[in-house]
Amino acid sequence: MSTREKLHALPGVVMPPPETKGYYFQQTMVRIRDPEASLKFYTDVLGMTLLCKLDFAEMKFSLFFLGYQKPEDVPEDPVERAKWMFGLPACLELTHNWGTESDPDFAGYHSGNSDPKGYGHIGVCVPDVVAACERFEQLGVEFVKKPNDGKMKNIAFVKDPDGYWIEILNPNNSSELVEIE
Amino acid sequence: MSTREKLHALPGVVMPPPETKGYYFQQTMVRIRDPEASLKFYTDVLGMTLLCKLDFAEMKFSLFFLGYQKPEDVPEDPVERAKWMFGLPACLELTHNWGTESDPDFAGYHSGNSDPKGYGHIGVCVPDVVAACERFEQLGVEFVKKPNDGKMKNIAFVKDPDGYWIEILNPNNSSELVEIE
Repeated sequence: MSTREKLHALPGVVMPPPETKGYYFQQTMVRIRDPEASLKFYTDVLGMTLLCKLDFAEMKFSLFFLGYQKPEDVPEDPVERAKWMFGLPACLELTHNWGTESDPDFAGYHSGNSDPKGYGHIGVCVPDVVAACERFEQLGVEFVKKPNDGKMKNIAFVKDPDGYWIEILNPNNSSELVEIE
Repeated sequence: MSTREKLHALPGVVMPPPETKGYYFQQTMVRIRDPEASLKFYTDVLGMTLLCKLDFAEMKFSLFFLGYQKPEDVPEDPVERAKWMFGLPACLELTHNWGTESDPDFAGYHSGNSDPKGYGHIGVCVPDVVAACERFEQLGVEFVKKPNDGKMKNIAFVKDPDGYWIEILNPNNSSELVEIE
């Protein structure tokens, strides 16, 4: 049995059923306290583009969608823009419940990395982890782990303004992560 | 000012700094209790492919990466496979801390959608939300919201085996979500 066959013979794994044809992983959503701080972080620090904003006045929340598309490729027409964005994989969706940014009693959001644990992080690949992290330091970004901390070298974790973790990695360093059969 | 210019003039938004060239959104990580149950859910119910498994014996955890690539495109060589996978956007990373699946005292993971809130969901686009949800029902999937529940029609939320939410949506229904300036 080849290593791929072994991988796909693990308990629970099936080949994609034909009924799931056309499915794609479009978005990952986290709640945020302050859109200005989060938009600054994801566009300036991480270089994402704001793709679309949707406001739900009756329910008092807004959705901000970001991704690694070019700003000039964002459609002008709002309806076309939403349709275009929902057609893209790998978007980050930030949910802002109105008022949290100015509410002194708002307790903040939970990153999932302290009890009760669950969600871990998103991961952004960069061409040079060390160079990226030097820039992040200059920008005042908070680190969970710097590239040389701990056992896994060349991987870093930073925090976004709500404390969510973002892994910073490089696919060319991944051979250090050896798969054990 | 065009609607796109207004979008990109929101407080906090900057154009992508040149230092972030080549960045991409590679992964979203959640912790899981039982790999067999989660692999069954993500491959059979949602049609993902298991792309790579990495085991860290010393730290007693394994990582499972899934995405919408074809099973036959998964490289045979484990090192090449990891490098290939880390080069892909929109992967789902499942972290399994060994032993949770058989530990009667394990309390389970937190979805982020009850207090303390934070993480929300991942979203999977499908060609036909109603047809997808009929199949999910037949497969015994638990729903948070069926397509016709609530205000947002044609959107559903299901739960994975750990209780994490997955939004089921269709980009062609997104014009119902009107952007308000």
